[in-house]
Amino acid sequence: MEVAIIGITGYAGTVLYELLTNHPQISQINLYAHNLTQSTPLGKITGQFSFGEQIVYPYDAQQIMENNDVVFFATPAGVTSKLAQPFLKQLFPVIDLSGDFRLNDPKQYEKWYQKPAANEDELKSAYYGLADLQNNDDQKYVANPGCYATSILLGLAPLVQNDLIQPDSILIDAKSGFSGAGKKLTTMNHFVNAHDNLQIYKPNQHKHIPEIMQKLKEWNQNVDYIQFMTTVVPMNRGIMSSIYVQIKPKIRFQNIQDAFKTCYQNSPFVFTTPNLPTVKEVVGTNECHLGFSYNPKTNYLLVDSVIDNMIKGAAGQAIQNLNQLFHFSITDGLKLTPTLP
Amino acid sequence: MEVAIIGITGYAGTVLYELLTNHPQISQINLYAHNLTQSTPLGKITGQFSFGEQIVYPYDAQQIMENNDVVFFATPAGVTSKLAQPFLKQLFPVIDLSGDFRLNDPKQYEKWYQKPAANEDELKSAYYGLADLQNNDDQKYVANPGCYATSILLGLAPLVQNDLIQPDSILIDAKSGFSGAGKKLTTMNHFVNAHDNLQIYKPNQHKHIPEIMQKLKEWNQNVDYIQFMTTVVPMNRGIMSSIYVQIKPKIRFQNIQDAFKTCYQNSPFVFTTPNLPTVKEVVGTNECHLGFSYNPKTNYLLVDSVIDNMIKGAAGQAIQNLNQLFHFSITDGLKLTPTLP
Amino acid sequence: MEVAIIGITGYAGTVLYELLTNHPQISQINLYAHNLTQSTPLGKITGQFSFGEQIVYPYDAQQIMENNDVVFFATPAGVTSKLAQPFLKQLFPVIDLSGDFRLNDPKQYEKWYQKPAANEDELKSAYYGLADLQNNDDQKYVANPGCYATSILLGLAPLVQNDLIQPDSILIDAKSGFSGAGKKLTTMNHFVNAHDNLQIYKPNQHKHIPEIMQKLKEWNQNVDYIQFMTTVVPMNRGIMSSIYVQIKPKIRFQNIQDAFKTCYQNSPFVFTTPNLPTVKEVVGTNECHLGFSYNPKTNYLLVDSVIDNMIKGAAGQAIQNLNQLFHFSITDGLKLTPTLP
Amino acid sequence: MEVAIIGITGYAGTVLYELLTNHPQISQINLYAHNLTQSTPLGKITGQFSFGEQIVYPYDAQQIMENNDVVFFATPAGVTSKLAQPFLKQLFPVIDLSGDFRLNDPKQYEKWYQKPAANEDELKSAYYGLADLQNNDDQKYVANPGCYATSILLGLAPLVQNDLIQPDSILIDAKSGFSGAGKKLTTMNHFVNAHDNLQIYKPNQHKHIPEIMQKLKEWNQNVDYIQFMTTVVPMNRGIMSSIYVQIKPKIRFQNIQDAFKTCYQNSPFVFTTPNLPTVKEVVGTNECHLGFSYNPKTNYLLVDSVIDNMIKGAAGQAIQNLNQLFHFSITDGLKLTPTLP
Repeated sequence: MEVAIIGITGYAGTVLYELLTNHPQISQINLYAHNLTQSTPLGKITGQFSFGEQIVYPYDAQQIMENNDVVFFATPAGVTSKLAQPFLKQLFPVIDLSGDFRLNDPKQYEKWYQKPAANEDELKSAYYGLADLQNNDDQKYVANPGCYATSILLGLAPLVQNDLIQPDSILIDAKSGFSGAGKKLTTMNHFVNAHDNLQIYKPNQHKHIPEIMQKLKEWNQNVDYIQFMTTVVPMNRGIMSSIYVQIKPKIRFQNIQDAFKTCYQNSPFVFTTPNLPTVKEVVGTNECHLGFSYNPKTNYLLVDSVIDNMIKGAAGQAIQNLNQLFHFSITDGLKLTPTLP
Repeated sequence: MEVAIIGITGYAGTVLYELLTNHPQISQINLYAHNLTQSTPLGKITGQFSFGEQIVYPYDAQQIMENNDVVFFATPAGVTSKLAQPFLKQLFPVIDLSGDFRLNDPKQYEKWYQKPAANEDELKSAYYGLADLQNNDDQKYVANPGCYATSILLGLAPLVQNDLIQPDSILIDAKSGFSGAGKKLTTMNHFVNAHDNLQIYKPNQHKHIPEIMQKLKEWNQNVDYIQFMTTVVPMNRGIMSSIYVQIKPKIRFQNIQDAFKTCYQNSPFVFTTPNLPTVKEVVGTNECHLGFSYNPKTNYLLVDSVIDNMIKGAAGQAIQNLNQLFHFSITDGLKLTPTLP
Repeated sequence: MEVAIIGITGYAGTVLYELLTNHPQISQINLYAHNLTQSTPLGKITGQFSFGEQIVYPYDAQQIMENNDVVFFATPAGVTSKLAQPFLKQLFPVIDLSGDFRLNDPKQYEKWYQKPAANEDELKSAYYGLADLQNNDDQKYVANPGCYATSILLGLAPLVQNDLIQPDSILIDAKSGFSGAGKKLTTMNHFVNAHDNLQIYKPNQHKHIPEIMQKLKEWNQNVDYIQFMTTVVPMNRGIMSSIYVQIKPKIRFQNIQDAFKTCYQNSPFVFTTPNLPTVKEVVGTNECHLGFSYNPKTNYLLVDSVIDNMIKGAAGQAIQNLNQLFHFSITDGLKLTPTLP
Repeated sequence: MEVAIIGITGYAGTVLYELLTNHPQISQINLYAHNLTQSTPLGKITGQFSFGEQIVYPYDAQQIMENNDVVFFATPAGVTSKLAQPFLKQLFPVIDLSGDFRLNDPKQYEKWYQKPAANEDELKSAYYGLADLQNNDDQKYVANPGCYATSILLGLAPLVQNDLIQPDSILIDAKSGFSGAGKKLTTMNHFVNAHDNLQIYKPNQHKHIPEIMQKLKEWNQNVDYIQFMTTVVPMNRGIMSSIYVQIKPKIRFQNIQDAFKTCYQNSPFVFTTPNLPTVKEVVGTNECHLGFSYNPKTNYLLVDSVIDNMIKGAAGQAIQNLNQLFHFSITDGLKLTPTLP
């Protein structure tokens, strides 16, 4: 099959391209840029692929659909809300790594993204592709989840779905490296400020909150809010979400372990571990590792959820969604090993 | 005055020595090592002070008291519980950076430190030197607080003392660099494992928990427990304690700000900041910066407390305690500026 | 085919295992440990593959040969010099990542490695597998080159083979991350010492010097010595060798570029770049990037040679040697992309 | 005395301010900004000194001279060439941390800095303040040396002044952290690009080359050129200059050691060390550590010269120059200890 990527110059697009080059079902990757007026070699656009002589074509929805079997959008927020219509109309398969189609409610989108939303019907026709927890058989427009959202929802699903925790006790202290924030130069990511530093940012204001809430509420109506704090730490890749929840009376730790086991028994990517997992053991892979620490005194359960934000949190999950949509083996293109040492 | 340091080769001893060399009231620093049998130049013991020709003397309590006005112990746990008696007996001033005399209850010490405690009378005669919150006028044996404990107690004092929060709602997600764990070589601090990684360790098991609890309970009998998690991050110095608490009904954010203002109005080292402080702004100083983020939905208040673990969390606070004990100006030897850039 | 790995717990063994799991010609990887007395799950030996239930078998040369088509040794120096005999005798294919069979002269080995060498006939029957510069058709015992040696020999080959430089003008200032030095805990690789630091080590004393000299002399009898300095920098993977040479009279920069082009025109892994390459552009790949800066005033040519020490400098090149030995496609198992971002 | 700083917002200005606050001879520091039209609290200009209520005044040469005893310029290149005239005319003491007055020859300045130079008379009236090698008794306008230049000139002075090396054999491979390049946001200093990376930049094109050459030539007419390469490494502070030179026939290593000993016998800041010094041992101090490795085979002597680029390479040396100019004790304000751990 042939696939199209829009947004190759961003980090997610780059990693997606890298992973797709090793996907056994893909014969060709075609690149397009929505701000290009004529075909240009990749090497002229970005120094990253310095030897890349592959051509980047100007964006043309009709041509993309003619020449490809699926299109990946790895574009910033606000792009696919404008460009998605022709694909939606023709039910052409789209895997959208941006946040534009993750929320069903256009008002929520506009509140959190501060941009015009796609219209409500379009939003509702999209499928939120949390690939380890569901199977997409027929829906064509896949909204690929955000990185924080993925790590948190995988850590909470068995607890919330099985009503094991106090619904309003969820507190998340998440830590991320700098690749999550993209290429844009900011004072925060200047090396001198980022190195040897810890910076809390967007307290209870991160864009991934509404997609997390939407899913939690779908699983359990009683969840009304979460506390969600994000700290950026001096590394490039990786997210550790420290998720704190109060467990319900009479629930025992064994019940919790069983719920996780059942939930992920068929997943080749989500593992519970005996120790509290570290970021390094998943960086380079499409895996999510989940570890636990229960404190009987405070009744707090810590779920330690770690992922590679660029793979499980973006490009890897996008490929899982591709594999589901086209009924490929779920590990096609995703047999990855951690970047160790 | 002349001062003695025991334990110059550890990180805290080194930083203490560095700071004391600039203390205006100190004419000479004498070094002693409790495992040395004859006088040895410092350079032979540690590569750190490669040009240090200063002599390190074998440990001899009597001589130390004769030649010095005060002694600093920067020794590992389990040393001063054995060596302190002669000093205690003669009411000779000791500033003890180890954990041996921080807890009043020998059983607690033995539970958390897994070592024999000093006897109960000795323990009770020691003074827990949380220097920004109290003034030591006459007590001679100062137990200098732990690094995590300092960052957390300074962040909680106004809230707990003034009964502004639900006493059992305290959850702390603390992050620290690697200097806090000392010089001992471990798999965890091998560069390849530490770099580009996040590692949760000692969940609800850190030795600083009992000294935090002892102080919180002294301030407010209703505090029964805390949730305390520690994550080590790839930097050398600095602690960020993200402290989450539920505020009591009818307490407004203004009340909280007022309580902090009142509490620290006379402290030259503790500041509340309009933004959430970063680690870098305090590293190199004896300061504690405190920032806030209140979420009305969850009723959680975040207190973001940052310190330099080697200075405010060890050597710097030890000098504050020295200044109090000898009625020096409180900023003597502590006019430090952040290590920026 | 089935392959054996001895030494899975070291960094090179780990990366080799990771890469081989994606090699299209390999149906099974069997693990053996030379210090094991009974079969043990990998997870019990190393925390790295925490979910690895793969069995590690005790070392048994005869069994290894019966059950595998080739064996990889990723063992420390001094092991294969003792274990290689049965394989050599039966002409069983071995790819040896250690330094034991790289030098032809046992005296040189003993001088630089401070260990007993294999005997001279054995050493001479080994093949130094600098895979981008030669093709191994029949020699069974492959000594896989060292990481520094690879980066330097690839940077010097066209210059030395074509007699373009003053043979005694070679000065190398090489920089490496910490993975090159292995897992052993040392004061040098304690995070606090390694981070924010630069450390020169083994000046003109690195073990890779004799294998570099052996090859250079084979290419050009006039090379008598090199200046070789190594500095360890705070990163995990990657080597940058800054190679300085004086070019011969009448040689123009164009001649040099032509020599490199000709030398590497058929290599899918070695590239010359218009800019001075950075370490990051090759980490995660089996590539060597070579850039140039010529200074007409000093007549110094800088060759900037960057590789991933664990891949091109160890496991990746070992797979190239496998591919050559078994006449597989040279890029089998090596279609890798840089770890960006 | 009272001192003025222009350029407080840059890294060098910040560190200078920090150090001067502890200088025993200084009663007040007055801040001025050349692009300010009215007095503004420091906190409004930079987040760095978030509590700084100190006022920054608009630039006014006459007022500066009336209210201060000396002025420090920590401004970018191209500023003091325009602003220096009134100070020069009145022989008012200036310590200029920029490059504008380091070169005697305006053509050289314009070639390397690509900006208009001050006029030749002005340039010649300035004094190049390499403080460890000379004493400034009367010259009022001090051009403070560049950071690379300081580390290199201190490493070469005894060799070049005493004619111990081949004058045209000097090759320098210098490594620096990111603080040297300032606050400006660039692709190169985006954390994701800077971290885990090594980047060679400005090969033989660094602005410090002409000031190094000017001084070397002054010491020894036979030095015609140097090879000077700069690599940026993932740390904030510190420079390591690996200086390679060929020693002259009949010169023995002992002669070299003697030359260094004699040269620096009276300097409290420059030390030769038995080991090859690391960056970390000088960061935080005004020291330069020099170590040696001589290779009899290649006849190359390595001089390993390490400094803190912000202190010895900028603000610290500026204070040394202040101390010389005003006949203070040379260590006033500079009794600093390394930032260890």
